[in-house]
Amino acid sequence: MMPDNKKKILVLGGGFAGMYAARHLEKVLRADEAEISLVNQENYSVYQPMLPEVISGSIGLTDVVSPIRRICPRSHLIMREVESIDLAKKVVTVAPGFRPRRMELPYDYLVIALGGITDFYGMPGMIENAKPFRTLADAVALRNHIIHALEEADVETDPAQRSKLLTFVVAGGGFSGVEVMAELNDFVYAVKRNYSRIRDAQMRCVLVHSGDRILPEMTEDLGRFAQKILVKRGVEIILNDRLEAATSEMAIFKSGIEVPSKTIVSTVPSVISPVLQKLDCKKERGRLLVNGQMELVGHEGVVWALGDCAAAKTKAGTPVPPTAQHAIREATTVANNIAAIMRGSARSEFAFEGLGKLASLGHFSAVADIMGIRISGPLAWLLWRAIYLMKMPGFSQKVRIALDWLVAILFPPDLVQLKMLRGSDIKRQHFEPGDVVFNQGDFGDSVYVIEKGTCEVLREKDGAQQHLADLGAGDYFGEMAVLADVSRNATIRAVSAMEVLLIPKDDFNLLKTTVPAFGDVFTQLAKKRSTAGGESGQPGS
Amino acid sequence: MMPDNKKKILVLGGGFAGMYAARHLEKVLRADEAEISLVNQENYSVYQPMLPEVISGSIGLTDVVSPIRRICPRSHLIMREVESIDLAKKVVTVAPGFRPRRMELPYDYLVIALGGITDFYGMPGMIENAKPFRTLADAVALRNHIIHALEEADVETDPAQRSKLLTFVVAGGGFSGVEVMAELNDFVYAVKRNYSRIRDAQMRCVLVHSGDRILPEMTEDLGRFAQKILVKRGVEIILNDRLEAATSEMAIFKSGIEVPSKTIVSTVPSVISPVLQKLDCKKERGRLLVNGQMELVGHEGVVWALGDCAAAKTKAGTPVPPTAQHAIREATTVANNIAAIMRGSARSEFAFEGLGKLASLGHFSAVADIMGIRISGPLAWLLWRAIYLMKMPGFSQKVRIALDWLVAILFPPDLVQLKMLRGSDIKRQHFEPGDVVFNQGDFGDSVYVIEKGTCEVLREKDGAQQHLADLGAGDYFGEMAVLADVSRNATIRAVSAMEVLLIPKDDFNLLKTTVPAFGDVFTQLAKKRSTAGGESGQPGS
Repeated sequence: MMPDNKKKILVLGGGFAGMYAARHLEKVLRADEAEISLVNQENYSVYQPMLPEVISGSIGLTDVVSPIRRICPRSHLIMREVESIDLAKKVVTVAPGFRPRRMELPYDYLVIALGGITDFYGMPGMIENAKPFRTLADAVALRNHIIHALEEADVETDPAQRSKLLTFVVAGGGFSGVEVMAELNDFVYAVKRNYSRIRDAQMRCVLVHSGDRILPEMTEDLGRFAQKILVKRGVEIILNDRLEAATSEMAIFKSGIEVPSKTIVSTVPSVISPVLQKLDCKKERGRLLVNGQMELVGHEGVVWALGDCAAAKTKAGTPVPPTAQHAIREATTVANNIAAIMRGSARSEFAFEGLGKLASLGHFSAVADIMGIRISGPLAWLLWRAIYLMKMPGFSQKVRIALDWLVAILFPPDLVQLKMLRGSDIKRQHFEPGDVVFNQGDFGDSVYVIEKGTCEVLREKDGAQQHLADLGAGDYFGEMAVLADVSRNATIRAVSAMEVLLIPKDDFNLLKTTVPAFGDVFTQLAKKRSTAGGESGQPGS
Repeated sequence: MMPDNKKKILVLGGGFAGMYAARHLEKVLRADEAEISLVNQENYSVYQPMLPEVISGSIGLTDVVSPIRRICPRSHLIMREVESIDLAKKVVTVAPGFRPRRMELPYDYLVIALGGITDFYGMPGMIENAKPFRTLADAVALRNHIIHALEEADVETDPAQRSKLLTFVVAGGGFSGVEVMAELNDFVYAVKRNYSRIRDAQMRCVLVHSGDRILPEMTEDLGRFAQKILVKRGVEIILNDRLEAATSEMAIFKSGIEVPSKTIVSTVPSVISPVLQKLDCKKERGRLLVNGQMELVGHEGVVWALGDCAAAKTKAGTPVPPTAQHAIREATTVANNIAAIMRGSARSEFAFEGLGKLASLGHFSAVADIMGIRISGPLAWLLWRAIYLMKMPGFSQKVRIALDWLVAILFPPDLVQLKMLRGSDIKRQHFEPGDVVFNQGDFGDSVYVIEKGTCEVLREKDGAQQHLADLGAGDYFGEMAVLADVSRNATIRAVSAMEVLLIPKDDFNLLKTTVPAFGDVFTQLAKKRSTAGGESGQPGS
C-alpha cells in the first residue's frame, strides 16, 4: 500500500514531548518523505501546568488538554497502550482495542516519549488510598473525591469521622504538590459555605515535604514567600518529613505522625513505565540514557528518547529537568535530527538551558524566577497566566481558557460531583495494626480475603467485648452478612499490618451463582461458623 | 437538638421536580417552621433539555447541571441513594456513604420526586450493549464511546469491522431520541475530518421509531419537517419498527432487520424505581397515583408525589406529561399545599396545561409549537435557545452556557475522550445464535462462564474448520489462554442465544490466588482439556 521510499517514523507517547516531536516532524518532512504515527493511550495531550485548576473547575475539563489530532493533523494517531518494544526487530506491539487483537507496528525511526508513571512501590496502602496527580483522570477523580468528602461531612454526626472527612493531605512540596495544595485549599474554603452543617467546622489542609522548605526547584526567598502565603491561607506545612504509608482512615508520616484523613494526595516523582524498564539499553537515574543529540545510546541514528523518560544533558552538561519548556525544545532537536539523518546533513546538539520557573499559588498569587529576575505576588500571578496561556497550543483552546478564567473570577466555583465510576470493583486494601476493618452493626457490603497479616474478631455483648478468634493469611471473613443480607455480627480489627482483598457484594453474588465451587467455599464456611459458634460466637460477620 | 415545633419535610429526588419543590418550600415556609431535607444521589440536578449537547461538548460538562446546594441553600442535601420508604412508620432509609452505615430519616411530610430509571427488562443484550440516555453520566459515557469508536475505526483495516464502528443507532423517535440523533449526527460529521483514514469513509446514523412518523408529541407537520431535516443531514430513519435486542456487534429490530453497529443508544420510556415499585400504594400507568392536589392517594396530607414518578392529572383531566415545565409547576403546587396543611388554609389543585413544545434539531434548526403557533427552522432554533437559557436556574449557569454556545459557534467541537472508567469489570454479555465470542488467535483477556444457552468450539487446522465440542449452561471456557497467557487456541461460536459472565483477566488472577478453590476449578479444567485433547483438540481456548 505504501511506496517503499516513505520512511516509517513511530512516536511513542503523546505528552508534550511526543506531540511536539510529531508536530515538528510534520513541519520538517514532506508527506512523501515519511509516514508519521503516534501511539498514545489518550487522544489528547494534558497541559500539566494547568491541571491543578481542574480541582476547582476554574478551567473546563476538556479545555485543559490539547486534541492531538488537531495539533498533528498529518500524523496517524493510534489510541492504544504500548505493550512492548523490540529494538532488534524494529517493531512495537500495542494492546488490543475493541477487538481482542494486538497490533504490530514496524518502524524505520523510533521516538520514545512515554513519560513516567506513578509508582507507590514499597509504600504500604498507597495504591489503595493515596491519590496520584498526573493525568486528567487523576485530577477529575481527586475533584470528585473532595466534593464527596464534603457531602459526607455535611451529613456525618460523629465529630471524629467528620474531622477525618475535612482533612486533606498533600505529600510533596515541589511544583506539583504546592500548586495542588494551593488550588485544593482555595476550593474547599470557597465551597464550604454551601454546606450548611460544616460551614463553621474546622478544616485541615496539610502539606508534607521532605526538605526544610517547599519549592526546592526555586530560590530560597521564593520558596519562603510561597510558604508564607500558604500558611496565611490556612495550610499546615510539615517539613523534613514524608508520607510513608496510608490506610483508608489516615496518612502515616516517616516521623510517626499520623494524620486522620480521607483524602491523601501524593505527588511522588515518576518512574519510567514497565515497558521501558524492560528495554535492554543503557539507563541513568532510572531513565533511558541519551547522547547530546537525544539518540538512545547504543541505537544511534534509529532511536531517540526525550521528555520525562529520558536522562538527557544539555551541551553545558546540566541534566534536563522534566518541564514542558524543555520537552518542547527536545522535540525540536529530535525532529531536526531525524530529518538530518534522512537527508544526510549535520545533526545538532540539545542546548536549551531553560527560561525560568513559575509556580502558581492560586488566588491572585504566584512566584516566578525568569532569567534571574525573581518576583512574587499578583504580578507573578499575572505573568504565570499570560505565559501559560500563550504556551497553550491551539487558538481555540486559548480562547476557551481565557473565558473559563473570566467566569471563574466572576462567579464562585461550581461544586458538581461528576460521578462516572461504577461504585465497586474487586480491590485490595491495606490496614495498619489496630485499624478496624468493619464494626459490628455495619452494613455488609463486601467479603474479605486476607492476603497478609492477622486480625481479631471481636463481639460486643451486654456491654462487654469478647475476643472470638484470630484470622490470618488465606482466611476469609465478612461472608455471613453478605450471604444472609444482614448487618455485621462482629467487629474485625487488624492485629498486624494487613493486606486484604475486598470482593464487593454484587461481584460476590455473581461469582457464587456461576462458579459453584467458589460459592461453596463461603457457604460451607458460614455454616460451620454459625453452627459451631452460634450465640457463643464464631467469626464470620 | 431540634425544637419540637419544627416540622420535618423530606424531599426524595433532586430532579427538576424535587429541586423546585425544595426551593419553593424555602420560599413559602420560614426557617423556624420547617426543616427541609432533600435526598439525591448527586449533588446536582440535570437540565434534561440541554443534555444532548454534552455529546458534542458544545455545553461544558458541569454547565449543563445546577448545583442543588446553590439553588436550595436552606435545605439539607443528603447525597445518598434511597433504599426504602416506610409509609406506616414515616421513615425513609438511605444507603451507606463512606462509612458502611445506613441512615434513617423520619419525616412529618414526605415529597416523592424520584423520577424514573431506564429498564431494559425483557430485551436481550440491552443492559450490556445498549446505552441509555438519561443521566449526565450516560451522556458522558456515550460521548466517550462515540469518540472511541472513531479512534478505533481510524486504525481498523477490516472494512466490515470499520463499518460497524462507523454505524450509530438511536432507538426512539420521541423528543429525546430525535435530539440525541441530531446532536450525534452533527458531531460525528464535524470531527470526522480530523481522522485522516476515515475522512472519506461511509458513516451510518440510523434512527428507528415505532410510529409512522417521528416526534409523536408534536403536530404532524412539525414531525415531518424534523424528519426531512434529519434525512437531509444523512440520517436514515426506519419507521414502524423497534429495537428488540442487541449484541456487542449489532442492533436487532422487531422486523428482523439487523444493523451491524458498535454504538446503540436507547431512549426507551422510563419506569419508576424499584423502591417505588415496592411501595404499597395505588398506581396508575405504572406510576404513583396522586389526586388533583398532588397528594399520594391513601396518604393525603402527609405524602405528595410529582414529576416522572407520579400519575397526575390536571383539573381539566389531562394526564400530565413528563416535562420540566410541568414538573416546576407541580413543585409549586406541592409546596403551597404543604404550607396550607401546616397553616390550616385551603389547598389548591394542579391546573397547568403546558405552554408549548420544542425540539432542537441541532445545527441552527428546531421545531416549536408554542400556544398553537407552529414554527420550524432557524427561528425556532433561536427560540429554543432563548427559552431554555432563560429557564436554566442560576445566573452564573446562564452566563456559562451562553459563553459555551459562543465558543461552539466560533470553533469546531473538541474531540477529547475523557476516559475515567477502569477498563474491566466482571460483567454479563449476550450473544445471538451464530455470534462469535472470540476467534482463534485472539488475545486472551477474559474467562467466560455460560449462564444460559449453548455454543460450539471450533478450530482451524490446515485450512479446515473442525468442530471440537459443544458447551452449555454452567460450562466455562477461555481459561487456557488466560492461565497460560497465550492466544486463543479455538473459536467459540454461539449456537443458541447465550448469556455469559465475563471475568476479566486481572480479576480472574486475583481470585485465583486468593480463593484457591476458585482457581482449582479452572486449572483442573485446563489440565483435563489439554491432556484429553492435546493436538486432537479439546475446548479451553
